[in-house]
Amino acid sequence: MFLRNFWYAAALRDEVGRQPLARTILGEPVLFYRKLDGSVAALEDRCSHRRVSLSKGRLVEDKVQCGYHGIMFDANGVCVSIPGQDTIPPQGHIKAFPVVERDGFVWIWPGDRAGAERGKLPDYSLCASPNYAGRTDRMRIDADYLLSIDNIMDLSHIAYVHQAYANDVAAAIRPTVKTDGATVTATRAMKDIENPPLYRRVIGTGHVDRVQELRFTPAGHLQLYVTIRGAGVDAPTLNVFYFSQLTPETARSHHTFFGVYRDFDIDNAEMTKLMGDQTVITVSEDKAVIEDQQRNWDQDGADRRMIDIAVDRGPLEARRLIRRLYEGERQDTAVAAAE
Amino acid sequence: MFLRNFWYAAALRDEVGRQPLARTILGEPVLFYRKLDGSVAALEDRCSHRRVSLSKGRLVEDKVQCGYHGIMFDANGVCVSIPGQDTIPPQGHIKAFPVVERDGFVWIWPGDRAGAERGKLPDYSLCASPNYAGRTDRMRIDADYLLSIDNIMDLSHIAYVHQAYANDVAAAIRPTVKTDGATVTATRAMKDIENPPLYRRVIGTGHVDRVQELRFTPAGHLQLYVTIRGAGVDAPTLNVFYFSQLTPETARSHHTFFGVYRDFDIDNAEMTKLMGDQTVITVSEDKAVIEDQQRNWDQDGADRRMIDIAVDRGPLEARRLIRRLYEGERQDTAVAAAE
Amino acid sequence: MFLRNFWYAAALRDEVGRQPLARTILGEPVLFYRKLDGSVAALEDRCSHRRVSLSKGRLVEDKVQCGYHGIMFDANGVCVSIPGQDTIPPQGHIKAFPVVERDGFVWIWPGDRAGAERGKLPDYSLCASPNYAGRTDRMRIDADYLLSIDNIMDLSHIAYVHQAYANDVAAAIRPTVKTDGATVTATRAMKDIENPPLYRRVIGTGHVDRVQELRFTPAGHLQLYVTIRGAGVDAPTLNVFYFSQLTPETARSHHTFFGVYRDFDIDNAEMTKLMGDQTVITVSEDKAVIEDQQRNWDQDGADRRMIDIAVDRGPLEARRLIRRLYEGERQDTAVAAAE
Repeated sequence: MFLRNFWYAAALRDEVGRQPLARTILGEPVLFYRKLDGSVAALEDRCSHRRVSLSKGRLVEDKVQCGYHGIMFDANGVCVSIPGQDTIPPQGHIKAFPVVERDGFVWIWPGDRAGAERGKLPDYSLCASPNYAGRTDRMRIDADYLLSIDNIMDLSHIAYVHQAYANDVAAAIRPTVKTDGATVTATRAMKDIENPPLYRRVIGTGHVDRVQELRFTPAGHLQLYVTIRGAGVDAPTLNVFYFSQLTPETARSHHTFFGVYRDFDIDNAEMTKLMGDQTVITVSEDKAVIEDQQRNWDQDGADRRMIDIAVDRGPLEARRLIRRLYEGERQDTAVAAAE
Repeated sequence: MFLRNFWYAAALRDEVGRQPLARTILGEPVLFYRKLDGSVAALEDRCSHRRVSLSKGRLVEDKVQCGYHGIMFDANGVCVSIPGQDTIPPQGHIKAFPVVERDGFVWIWPGDRAGAERGKLPDYSLCASPNYAGRTDRMRIDADYLLSIDNIMDLSHIAYVHQAYANDVAAAIRPTVKTDGATVTATRAMKDIENPPLYRRVIGTGHVDRVQELRFTPAGHLQLYVTIRGAGVDAPTLNVFYFSQLTPETARSHHTFFGVYRDFDIDNAEMTKLMGDQTVITVSEDKAVIEDQQRNWDQDGADRRMIDIAVDRGPLEARRLIRRLYEGERQDTAVAAAE
Repeated sequence: MFLRNFWYAAALRDEVGRQPLARTILGEPVLFYRKLDGSVAALEDRCSHRRVSLSKGRLVEDKVQCGYHGIMFDANGVCVSIPGQDTIPPQGHIKAFPVVERDGFVWIWPGDRAGAERGKLPDYSLCASPNYAGRTDRMRIDADYLLSIDNIMDLSHIAYVHQAYANDVAAAIRPTVKTDGATVTATRAMKDIENPPLYRRVIGTGHVDRVQELRFTPAGHLQLYVTIRGAGVDAPTLNVFYFSQLTPETARSHHTFFGVYRDFDIDNAEMTKLMGDQTVITVSEDKAVIEDQQRNWDQDGADRRMIDIAVDRGPLEARRLIRRLYEGERQDTAVAAAE
């Protein structure tokens, strides 16, 4: 159940250079490379002649040349030369994807080109803000991206999947979940709780008030804004921004781009490393659970008896929203086809 | 063609402890663990919530807690707590299997719970007898368990698959095969033959009389009672008990629990090791042949021309018995469904 | 799309000895071995009893004995003994394939036995000629053999796939392609060109005239005759013979037997090694491209938009010829079935 008319993170800025990068996005093989002016191109990773992967070819200035028979395509997918002949058949051109770079990410738009407006880019300006410090990483997860959404939208799993990191208090607190337009928000406020291990290293072992506001925005943006306030009038407030961006690879796998950014102690590289590494461990633990789940679902086939429980409210709202948008896209496609 | 209403060896005693053990039995994922009183529990290895493997969770006294959202099940599969809510839906419970421990094995009953009587347990008391010494091992074989039954029920294969261990005389002797109720017995008596290599180490190189009585009892018990008598009136008689218990894992794989026990020189640990190691080699040689056969059958598909030969009598009788019991179980299920 | 009524290279001479060799040819498992008189036998690699691979058995003089129950077959596939019984059922025999050895290759005929005439053997006498020196190698390629035919029949790929070896002039020259009976010939003549790197080592850096005559003969013979003449009246002429013989393994894989032989400097073992090693590199480079192509075709499924271009004339003629012969074989089979 892919939503196509959205911007998706396709790569971290540094992954794309003059060496062609092959990556499958929403089931489509895509080739990324950086043009001489520094901007990024994204093309269908198939030569129109015999479907060899263009990513195994080579760049010639801003063009990519197929490594098999030397056919050349420009950054718009236009076939500009075929060795051995002077004419280019119209079917020789390949698909180019709208692509932009912002906030450290390379963004791709797999849907109808007409809708690819820059204004629809999701906001990750905190990742590029001078007031925040942090790190972004990437991982592949061998499971439907919806399982990752289920995972993150229910923070109660933290107490069990991430035991070392969790505190028992949080597990017992039911979040307030509400859907507002195309955003599902789950909020948990914890008053006068023991400071969880990670923050202890930052603001000591005293009790704190903590608010977690988790926002899901299609397709695949999970943003967790955490506010920790020491339990006292003059206590400092810390802001931490966690996120996972899920980009489907196939129906059974997805890329996740995830990071943690903070607005305190921002010159402390060791703290950046500590929190970044901790987040990699967290995502790895989630990955293990989700991949087990996917294997079980595949293995058990249609016989998948399941129950919903109270903590599923967030995940279920998110799935409802995705389903609604998906039906909308299908309808749009049907209308477009009828016109 | 699984027979469900039988006890199956699921694990060796020492495999089951306070660390959850995951094992697939007759196509079903099962979780085994030992309760605080030392008895064994066997549960469906799926959380009723999102089908994560419970074996990846943790034990809390006699309960198992899912590692994803903390849902807890007791040793009877009853869902006893769901974090974040007070009620337990009836669909929240999971399947528990009848399970007992005897003669060094953990036995599971995958069929109708009503029939799981202790009296139906197969007899492996020799493995626990103070008059016998020996060892049991376990192996996975990537083939239908019926191919292992074919293999063992025709001892003529020994001369070819286990050349180092075999003697040529035996290969030429056709066994007497008879089916009596739910047991197929194949007997070969050899008079005044050269002592096969293994026993030479025990009772010298002289000629011996040897009787092999091989019994197949569903589902999957192959017991070989060997009697070796030195060729003379006062010659000693040695008894050796070989067995393989086959427990289907999937339609294309099975577990085998096998061992060799003897009633002579029982304090000789070196002899136990020697005969145990020899049996591991033997089963490994069989595994290689059977897995080749399974690969060929899979690859050749429906086009599987085959002939039956004289030595197949034992295997064919065993397959006939299994087929009869299988049809019986299907009929019982149909009757139960109709009632 | 296998053509069955043709001789195929199945093995290099030295691959077949007294150790059974298993190889899949046109989807059929075949066992090769050398008889005591030095001639080669090729049998269906399945025991007629339980379909175990005979190649895992052992040779007894000119017979092969199944490693499972000792059933024995002669070099004609006749079942000559079944331990434990005196009679041999007619279904006990297995298929034997016509097989001959010539020019360093073991040739098999997978089709109707009646047509397996020695006169139809392809001509690789240059490989055995005292006037030529060279080397033959073997490789497995995980792709339909037709993709290798496409690859070789269009020599324009050399400039891109084998850059180190290629010269730019050649890429621009369109070959003359003609089909004559059951042979497609593609000829490229290059006048007064820079000597390509490989030959430079042999006849210096001066300009040369070069003629490449590439012949495709079903099923799977690609023979490239290269003539290099120094640009002058008295300049010497070098002859180089490259070939690839493609033998389908499955619908998605094939064996290639390839080599390079020359008529100059034939006592120079270092030159033989140099040219042989270069050819191995060349075929490895082709293998990488073709396997990428096969993976893409498999992954993209039916949605395989492709265009034909000018340089495809050779490949397309070759495919047309194969298609015609294939339809002929199907018709013959239908007629034979109707008679």
